[in-house]
Amino acid sequence: MQGSDRRSNCPIACTLDLIGDRWTLLVLRDLFLGKTRYDEFLGSSEGISTNILADRLRRLETMGMIEKTPYSSHRRRMQYSLTERGRSLGPVLRAIRDWGLDNVSGTETFRQRPPGRNERGPQA
Amino acid sequence: MQGSDRRSNCPIACTLDLIGDRWTLLVLRDLFLGKTRYDEFLGSSEGISTNILADRLRRLETMGMIEKTPYSSHRRRMQYSLTERGRSLGPVLRAIRDWGLDNVSGTETFRQRPPGRNERGPQA
Repeated sequence: MQGSDRRSNCPIACTLDLIGDRWTLLVLRDLFLGKTRYDEFLGSSEGISTNILADRLRRLETMGMIEKTPYSSHRRRMQYSLTERGRSLGPVLRAIRDWGLDNVSGTETFRQRPPGRNERGPQA
Repeated sequence: MQGSDRRSNCPIACTLDLIGDRWTLLVLRDLFLGKTRYDEFLGSSEGISTNILADRLRRLETMGMIEKTPYSSHRRRMQYSLTERGRSLGPVLRAIRDWGLDNVSGTETFRQRPPGRNERGPQA
């Protein structure tokens, strides 16, 4: 988002305009947790719909936060992973997670995938 | 937001359901910057509308993040301030601000009010 599309030059407003919707940060959370495939994102307990998921993955790719590659022999099936730019959102997700754990009763961290796939992300 | 209203027990999802809309965090930012009055929030460069501002202030008060008190002799005019719960969102706002400053070109921190009113908040 550049120039006249912006609400202001405030870094908080600009960041929210990129990722501050109801779903984008949850898709990023899933990537930090080690999920890579469409059906894995769809399986998350919040119940994201297929059209919203497709839209958010497309937007995240356009923003340079994730990249997609074909997996195994299914040339038309894609897997998604965080780019360095995407991983740089780790502190944002961690701060949100920590506030939720401290301030919203009954919240709990999800189990993280085996180490090695998401070393830099938050356990959400 | 409790129980069945929740999308999940994930602390990130629950926090986003409370504050993760396009405007709430900007009102909180303004409070951290030392703004207290309705017309001051309306004057922020993002151009929040009066009905959205009134709604967000009401929601923040219901969530226990801000409190309102009459100011000066205008018994019907209110000023708003962060509660301890509201101030606990400082790390979230700082993480978002820092990511924006590092990753969105042209963003800049706003000037903060004189010290003493918002020691614990981010300079946004």
